[in-house]
Amino acid sequence: MKRLEKIQPFYVMELLKRAKALEQTGVDVVHMEIGEPDFPTPPEVVSAGMDAIAGGEVKYTSAAGLPALRESIARFYADRYGVEVSARRIFVTPGASGAFSLILAGLLEHTDEVLLSDPGYPCYPNFVRLYGGEPVLVPVNVESNFQLDVNSLSRHWTSKTRGVVMASPSNPTGTLADSTAMREIASFLDSRMAFWLSDEIYHGLVYGEQAHSALEYSDHAFVVNSFSKYFGMTGWRLGWTVVPETFVEAAERLAQNLFISAPTHSQMAALAAFGPSNLAELERRRREFETRRDFLLKELPGLGFEIPVQPQGAFYIYADCSRWTEDSFAWAWQLLEKAHVAVTPGKDFGINEPQRYLRFAYTASMERLAEGLSRMRTLLGVG
Amino acid sequence: MKRLEKIQPFYVMELLKRAKALEQTGVDVVHMEIGEPDFPTPPEVVSAGMDAIAGGEVKYTSAAGLPALRESIARFYADRYGVEVSARRIFVTPGASGAFSLILAGLLEHTDEVLLSDPGYPCYPNFVRLYGGEPVLVPVNVESNFQLDVNSLSRHWTSKTRGVVMASPSNPTGTLADSTAMREIASFLDSRMAFWLSDEIYHGLVYGEQAHSALEYSDHAFVVNSFSKYFGMTGWRLGWTVVPETFVEAAERLAQNLFISAPTHSQMAALAAFGPSNLAELERRRREFETRRDFLLKELPGLGFEIPVQPQGAFYIYADCSRWTEDSFAWAWQLLEKAHVAVTPGKDFGINEPQRYLRFAYTASMERLAEGLSRMRTLLGVG
Repeated sequence: MKRLEKIQPFYVMELLKRAKALEQTGVDVVHMEIGEPDFPTPPEVVSAGMDAIAGGEVKYTSAAGLPALRESIARFYADRYGVEVSARRIFVTPGASGAFSLILAGLLEHTDEVLLSDPGYPCYPNFVRLYGGEPVLVPVNVESNFQLDVNSLSRHWTSKTRGVVMASPSNPTGTLADSTAMREIASFLDSRMAFWLSDEIYHGLVYGEQAHSALEYSDHAFVVNSFSKYFGMTGWRLGWTVVPETFVEAAERLAQNLFISAPTHSQMAALAAFGPSNLAELERRRREFETRRDFLLKELPGLGFEIPVQPQGAFYIYADCSRWTEDSFAWAWQLLEKAHVAVTPGKDFGINEPQRYLRFAYTASMERLAEGLSRMRTLLGVG
Repeated sequence: MKRLEKIQPFYVMELLKRAKALEQTGVDVVHMEIGEPDFPTPPEVVSAGMDAIAGGEVKYTSAAGLPALRESIARFYADRYGVEVSARRIFVTPGASGAFSLILAGLLEHTDEVLLSDPGYPCYPNFVRLYGGEPVLVPVNVESNFQLDVNSLSRHWTSKTRGVVMASPSNPTGTLADSTAMREIASFLDSRMAFWLSDEIYHGLVYGEQAHSALEYSDHAFVVNSFSKYFGMTGWRLGWTVVPETFVEAAERLAQNLFISAPTHSQMAALAAFGPSNLAELERRRREFETRRDFLLKELPGLGFEIPVQPQGAFYIYADCSRWTEDSFAWAWQLLEKAHVAVTPGKDFGINEPQRYLRFAYTASMERLAEGLSRMRTLLGVG
C-alpha cells in the first residue's frame, strides 16, 4: 500500500462533512468552498440530453467519442483560439478526470518525474503517483502570477523529469499564464522532448483578459478541457483532450481499455453546447461570476485578507489570512463553527505556505456571498 | 513508451471498421461480434433518467455515489445472493471500467504479478499494466470449464504474485466457476493474503444455473458489477464495486481523485433498475438470450464448429473452428468478406491456442442469427 498511502484525503471534505451535519441540525451554512457552478445545466443542453435518452438507445459510442462532437470541439478551437485542430486529435473522455488518466497512463513510466505548481489542484500529484510517476512540486508565488515559468521549471529539472502539468486559469489562485510565459514554456519543453499537459478546464470563465490555449504555442501539447465548469455540466461527467498527432493511435487503444467510451447521453447533450444561444447564456453566467469576483475582491481586503494577485479566471480567490492566523486549516474550522461559513484551507493545494491561505469559491449567489462576508465581519469584529 | 507498447489493439476493431465500410457500400452485415445487448434501455430506467435531467440539476454526487443507490445495491446482494453487504462497502463507478481502475490503482505496486485466465477479457492485462503490475496469463481449458482453479493458480504462483482477476460468467467462453472452485479459491487466496477481484458483470445473464458471487465465499473479495449488460445500460457508463471493509477509506480517496463521481443522471436512472416490474422486463430479455444461445448451440456443431464446453452465461459462445482453419483471425476476415458475417477472433482473448477459436455473440435477433448461420452454411457448403 506504499503508493496508496501517498494519496492524501481532501481536507475540505472533513469541513464539508461537518457543514452537512450542522445543516442537519437546522444551521444555515454559507458555502464558499464548492468547486462547482451553482447554475443548473442550460436548458438547450438539458433538452438535447432528454431527446438522447427518450428512445432508450443509449449504446456505447466509439472510444474516441461521437464524431459530430469531436468535429464541434475542433470548430470551437478554430472559433475561439484561431487554432486548426484536426478532429482526430480530439478524444472525448469521462470528465477531465478521464483525460488525465488517458494521458498520464500513456506517458509515464515508473519513477518518471512530473513538475507541478504548488499551490495547485490536489488531484494532479495523485494522478501522477497512480500511473507510476513522481510528482515534483514547484513553488510558485506572486512574482510569476502563481504560474509556472521557464525559470522555475529549470530550477527543478532533473534527468528524470518527463514533463509538466499546468493549469491556466489556476485552481486555487484563478491566475492566468501569460502569452510570453506560455510561448517560452512551449519551446523549453520541446527542446527537452518533454510533455506539456495544459489543463484548460476553466477557460471560458475569464474576466477582462484572454485565456490562451497551449495549442496556440505547440502542436505537441496535451490539452485537457471539460464541459463541467464553463458549460455547466459537472454531473454529466464529460471532458475532452486534444493530443498530439503522434499520440492519436495510442490514445485510441488507451480509451478502449480505460473507459470503453464516455457517457453517450452526455455526449449527445453536449452537441447542443456550442450553439449560439447556449453560448449567449454561458456569457450571461460568466458576467455574473465576474460580478461576484469583483465584489469579493473589493470586500475581502476590508476584512483583513490580502489578495496577493488579482485572479483573472475560474471562480476562486486565494486569500492570505495571515493577519488573523498562523494556521489557516484550524482557522477554517473556526469560520465554520462560529460564523457558519465554509471555505477550503490552503493545505489542500500543496506545501508552499498553505497555512497562510484560504480559497474562497464564488459559486454562490451575490446574496449568499454578502451574507457570508457579513458573518465573517461580525466574527472578526471589523468594518 | 515501454508500457504503452504492451497495450495491444483489439483485433476485432479492424474487422468492425471493415464491416462498417462494407455497410456504407450497401452490404448487409450480420453482427455476431458485438459485446453489447441489442435491447434498448428499459422504459422505467429511461423515464427515471429523463426526470433526473429535466430540471438541469445534474451536479456532482459524493465520490462513492448516491446513498440511495448504494443502499439499493446492498439490498440486491441480500435478495439475490443472501449476502449481507454494508452499503458503505459499495462504490458506484463510471462503468465497470472505472471499478477496475479504482481497485487496481489502489492495490498494485510496481512489478506486482496478477494472475488472469487465458482466454479472458483483453482489458484485464492492460489495466494491470497501466497500474504498474505484470499480468501473468494462466491457460485454462475444458477440464476446468475454462475457469481458474486452485491447481492452475498454484502452478503460476510466485513470490511476486499479488492477486487474481477472474470472471464468471467468463468472456469469451460464457462459462461459470462452480461453487466448490470458488470456495477453494477464496481460502487459497486468503491464506496467501492475496486479493481476489471477481468480475461479475454478466451476472443475471445466466441460463439454467445459479451464478455465485465471490461475496458468498469471502468478505475480502473485490467484486465488480455493472449496469451495462444485464440491466441494459451500456452507454450510461455506470458500474459498481464492493470492496473489503479495510479498503473503504482508500476507495473513497481514490474515487475522489480518479473520477470525482460517476455520472449523476445515470445514477438517478439506475435507482429505477431494481424495481419489480423492471426486473420482470430483464427476466424476459434473459429468456430471449437463452433462446438464442440454445439455437446457436444446436446449429453451430452442424456447421463444423466444436463447442468444447456448454456456456452457461453472458451472451458468448467460444467455438473451435479448427476443422476449417489453422488461423481463426484470417478466417474471421474470410467470413466477413465472403459471407458478410462479423465475429471476434480468438486472438483478442489471449495466447492460449487463440487460432483455434472464434467468439460468437448472440446480441442480435433470432432472425439475424439464423441469417448469419445460413450464410455461413452456404460459404462452407455444409448442411
